[in-house]
Order: sequence, then C-alpha cells, then structure tokens
Amino acid sequence: MNNKSSIGLIKPSSVKFDNSLLLECGKELKGFEMVYETYGKLNEEKSNAILVCHALSGSHHAAGYHKDSEEKAGWWDSLIGPNKAIDTNKYFVVSPNNLGGCHGTTGPKSTNPETNQAYGPDFPVLRVRDWTNSQALLADHLDINTWHAVVGGSLGGMQALDWSIAYPKRIKKAGVIAAAPKLSAQNIAFNEVARQAITSDPDFQEGNYMQTNTSPKSGLRLARMVGHITYLSDESMKSKFGRELKEEKLGFGFDAEFQVESYLRHQGDAFSKTFDANTYLLMTKVLDYFDPADEFDGDLVTAFKPILAQALVLSFSSDWRFSPSRSKEITNALINAKKKVSHIEIDSPLGHDSFLFPEERYVEVLKTFLGSQS
Amino acid sequence: MNNKSSIGLIKPSSVKFDNSLLLECGKELKGFEMVYETYGKLNEEKSNAILVCHALSGSHHAAGYHKDSEEKAGWWDSLIGPNKAIDTNKYFVVSPNNLGGCHGTTGPKSTNPETNQAYGPDFPVLRVRDWTNSQALLADHLDINTWHAVVGGSLGGMQALDWSIAYPKRIKKAGVIAAAPKLSAQNIAFNEVARQAITSDPDFQEGNYMQTNTSPKSGLRLARMVGHITYLSDESMKSKFGRELKEEKLGFGFDAEFQVESYLRHQGDAFSKTFDANTYLLMTKVLDYFDPADEFDGDLVTAFKPILAQALVLSFSSDWRFSPSRSKEITNALINAKKKVSHIEIDSPLGHDSFLFPEERYVEVLKTFLGSQS
Repeated sequence: MNNKSSIGLIKPSSVKFDNSLLLECGKELKGFEMVYETYGKLNEEKSNAILVCHALSGSHHAAGYHKDSEEKAGWWDSLIGPNKAIDTNKYFVVSPNNLGGCHGTTGPKSTNPETNQAYGPDFPVLRVRDWTNSQALLADHLDINTWHAVVGGSLGGMQALDWSIAYPKRIKKAGVIAAAPKLSAQNIAFNEVARQAITSDPDFQEGNYMQTNTSPKSGLRLARMVGHITYLSDESMKSKFGRELKEEKLGFGFDAEFQVESYLRHQGDAFSKTFDANTYLLMTKVLDYFDPADEFDGDLVTAFKPILAQALVLSFSSDWRFSPSRSKEITNALINAKKKVSHIEIDSPLGHDSFLFPEERYVEVLKTFLGSQS
Repeated sequence: MNNKSSIGLIKPSSVKFDNSLLLECGKELKGFEMVYETYGKLNEEKSNAILVCHALSGSHHAAGYHKDSEEKAGWWDSLIGPNKAIDTNKYFVVSPNNLGGCHGTTGPKSTNPETNQAYGPDFPVLRVRDWTNSQALLADHLDINTWHAVVGGSLGGMQALDWSIAYPKRIKKAGVIAAAPKLSAQNIAFNEVARQAITSDPDFQEGNYMQTNTSPKSGLRLARMVGHITYLSDESMKSKFGRELKEEKLGFGFDAEFQVESYLRHQGDAFSKTFDANTYLLMTKVLDYFDPADEFDGDLVTAFKPILAQALVLSFSSDWRFSPSRSKEITNALINAKKKVSHIEIDSPLGHDSFLFPEERYVEVLKTFLGSQS
C-alpha cells in the first residue's frame, strides 16, 4: 500500500442467493454467491449508490487495498476514492465480481450443487443481461432501489447500457465508457483466437483441468498476450517500447530481444497464473453475445426506447478496440431515441486501456456528470 | 485451372549454389539451392527482367498453375500475366522462394550437409539483406545484370527497397508496395504472439519436430489466425462476415458460431497442414529485423543515399498492418535523399491484403510505373 490518495484497506463482502436465477440461455442457476466491495457510505435516502461494473478480466477489487503489503490497488483506484472522479466522500460505490467470474462469485471454479464437483466447462454461457439481473438482486440485498449511476469501461460500459435498458426506473445515470453497441467481426476474431489458444492447449482437457489439478496456462498466456495488444494503441506501444532491444545487438535467435516481447511475455505469464481459463472463455463469449439491438432486427433506436437514464458516452481517441466511432453509434441511437445523452471524446494516446487512467479531462467530465442534476 | 487470363501451366526451376554464402548473422551457409519460377521471355538485351519478391508465407509460385487440376493459381496471378499489371508479354518475371523458405529453397526443412540431418531450429536467422544477396546470385545465374524492376508487397516490398540500397546499379525501378521502413512495436508484438503460439505447442519440441515426424500444427494454426486478422481490415471483415451466425440462434457454447470464427479456423487449419513452423518463425524474425536505417543511427535519409532506382511507393487506405503513414515515412526519406519517387495511396477496403487484389487504379499505376522511361 503506497498510495495516500487511495481509500485504503478494503474487505470484500459476500452474499448468497438461494433462489434460482433464470439465465438468458434458458438454463437455471440454482442459487449463487456474489462477492463485492463497497466504498463510501450509503446515505439515509439511499440515493447515492453507484454500481461499478468490471470488464473482461476485472474483479470486484476496484479500489483500495486488501492488505497493507499489497503493492497494487484495485483496478480503478485512480478513479474511485476520496475526491476522485467517483468520489467516495459523496457516493456509496458497489463493485461486484460478475457471475461466471473467478474471484469469488459463483463461476466455473465453484462447486455445482447438483454434482458436488466444480462446474468447469458446464457452467452456463452467459449474456450481459444475466449480469444485470444478478446485480439487480445485489441491489435488492443492499436495499438500493435506484442506482444514482451505473458506470463501467469496455465490457463494463456495456453493462451500464444494459442496466438502462433492462431496469430503466432503477438507474438515474449511465456512464458508458470505451464501449460499443456490439462487437465487430474483428473484435470477435480476436476473441476467437484467444479461445482457440486456450482450448487447443493440451492441459485444457475440454475444460476439466481442475480435476487433474492443472490449468491451460500456456493457452491462457497466449490469450492474454493477444488481448493485451488490442488494449494498447500503436502509439502507446511506440512510446513505451519503440523498437528498443534488451541487448545492444540483434541476437539472431528466438529469445525475447525487443522490449515489447519481454513485456508481453511477462503480462501473459502473470495473468495465466491467476485467472481461470473457463472464466476467460466465458467472458469473451459474453462480449461476443452483447447486442441489445439483436431482438429488434438490429434497430438500436428501438432497443433504447425504454431508457430513462441520462447517459454519458465516453470514448478515447486512440482506442482501436472500441474506437470513438463505435461510441458514436451508441450516442446517435440514443439521440434518435430522444434520450438525454452527451458524448465526449477524450484525447488520449493510451488506446483502449485509457479508461483505466485518470487523464485530467476524463476525470473532470465523469465527476461533473455524476454530480450534475439529471 | 479455371482462369483464362492466367499465364497457364508453369514448371518451377531450381539452381544449386556451391559456394558459401556469408550471412548477416556472421554464419556461413555452405551452399544452397534456390527454387524459382519464371514467366515471359528474357529479351536479347536482358533488359526486361523483373524480380518479384514474396511476403511472409508466400512462395515462388506467384502466377499460373502447376497442374491442370490446380484450383488456385499463384499468389499474385491477378497481377502477373499477359496484359496484366506485370505484363508477361513484355517482361521476363523471376519469382524465387526465399532462403529459409519451405517450398524448395534451402531452409529449416533441408538437410544440413554438416550433420546430414534437417537444419530444423539450427537454420540461421536471416535478414532481408541475406535474401537480397542470394537473389543477386540468382540474377547472376540467369545472366541478368540489371533488373528492370524489383517488386513486392509487404515483406516483398521491403526486399525491393533493400535491393535498391544494396545493389543500386543492378535495379532500375523499385516497387515498394504495402511496406514499412521497419516494424512498429505493435507489429513486433503480433509476430511475437505468433512465435509464442508455435514454440509453446508441445509438438514443437524446441524445433526438432521433424525428427519425430510431427509438426506443431496447433501453434502454427493459431499463429496464422492472429496473422490473418492483421491482413484484413475491420471494414472488409465487416462486409465479409458482419456478425452473421452460422445457425439462426446463439448456441451458448464454444463451437464456431459466428461466420468469422469458422473462416479463421479454416484458414488456420489449411495453413498449418502445409507450412513449416521453423520457416514461419524465421520469416517473422526477418520482418522484425528489417531496419535499413539501423546502421545509420536511425537516419533513413542516409540509409537511402546509395539508391539510384526510381521508386514507386504504394499504400492502401485500409491497411492497418503497414498503414499509408508508414509508406509516407519511406517516401519522405526518399524525397529528402533527393531520389526519384512517387507515392500513391490506393483507396481499398481490403486491408493489408489489398496488395494481392487487382484493384483497377492499383493495376494501372503499377503498369504505368513499370512501362515508363526512368
């Protein structure tokens, strides 16, 4: 813990839901557990709660530290905390680990009550709506009828959008950051490469690797490496690594010799040791399946009709995973559906990952949006 | 063979060089064999020869058919042939398989005369200059003192550029298509993912897979899949596949269900059955190592000083692997070095692969360039 502006030590909470949850795929989940963190205090009117939604590989640990010795704070610590963009002096922030995750909420690593074994590959494939529905149960549990805001970046932004469609009366503001109304073929293609990397790893064993105490680390590592390239911009890679060599001269071999190679290998290694492969597969599929216009013949304007929330759509200039033009698709459909929306494009060289960093204008825009009268 | 405008049946040739070739890495190759194809006729003055250089996964089979039953013509058949951009009625076209390749020219699959076993992973890592030098020996063998032109796309374009630097008096025109003066960190990162996919496949066996009659097909398949994404534009993927599903409804499973998934799997499967993994590793490394400005403290203008050839730099609007701005770097340095250069950006939705397709303006520009007085 080395960050004075952080909210400090945080202890995750957990809640068990005993009732069945009907999923979008048609299956029922016979009860589930959800792990979450909260920052700040719920006011008496219960009107200051903000739901923060994580992206592909995130978790409930969005801000603060779990231990004094923890070196890295939660994934959105730069934006959540006292006087930060999501100000914990003003708001009660709730950050759950999503269903299907691998950080405590029921997912492929959890025990299937019907078999008394880990779900593994049998955990149902989810859609964003399943998350929205399960988060609504969490809201009920916390006695929060209406979120002051639901906010997230990337896949998290898609959840904010889905909340505003599925529970229009329970959300006042939607912060849709670095998102898209659905994945492009190229987005799906990158996800598919990640999935193939995992499933073609011999250690994957059709997803039953837990039974042999192994994990398809090599595949997960590759999946993360390819994902990571899409999170950064060409520009940020250039300024971070350029073509710098680790040694002075070319090695004429296959060891990592450009800085960017070591970096990617390191990212992949670290990730493959902590993340669950079945969860990763599942999360990429949730992304691929997100498409609120789908049931309206592709008409996003119709899909957005129920929305009552005020929306802020944020995009980043160098994001090529979900580029500003994808955010504009959301904005334009919201405008055409006559919804309250503003769209700000933040100038940032950091690619898709920009949403994780407290660029001044980004922080100011988000703070003002959350504080404004809707 | 189903293409009337093709040059028709072609038989590859081969030449064996007995002398040692000193490589950029410092090692010597004790003789080598080079496979090549020729199209058209060499004129009496030997002034109409064009060298065509292939890219990462190409071969000497650039035009025509090897068998009547062959369904697909050579990789550049749409541009090489009678009355085509590279007109075989006018030019004598030479298309070799590069050193280190897996289509007949000496490479990792070939027998190392010193061990009487396949080179495998011991085949030296090459640089573009090694190809230029070996292609110069081929020119000698064919009694061609000066190429009318050296032309290629992508890694092939880098060879055209290198020819104009290394043998300024032996090349009149350089066609540098969809290339870059060096790889960006992002380019290297994609190559590194491809390499890691191959080397982490248990069947790779540190490159000695030939000894056990296996091949790291799974890794090679992944490498091709990720490469393929970078060859297409987001736009062309969208028009080719959109988000079309194979079945009408979402499958909530991990079979290929979007069209783009099947396509990528198919591309990867086909490639992994025919291409050699050690060659693929080598080719990506040649790409990473290309950097003519390297020995001049990064000064491309100085690197280009020796050039005498007239250059045509061609780029494609939707190419994000080597975008038009990368071509402009080449062009600007050539201008600053006071060389004869023109740069045309072709409007094409097909991404990096655009250089393989006979877009009308592209064909016209290339044809005019080759036919003009230099």
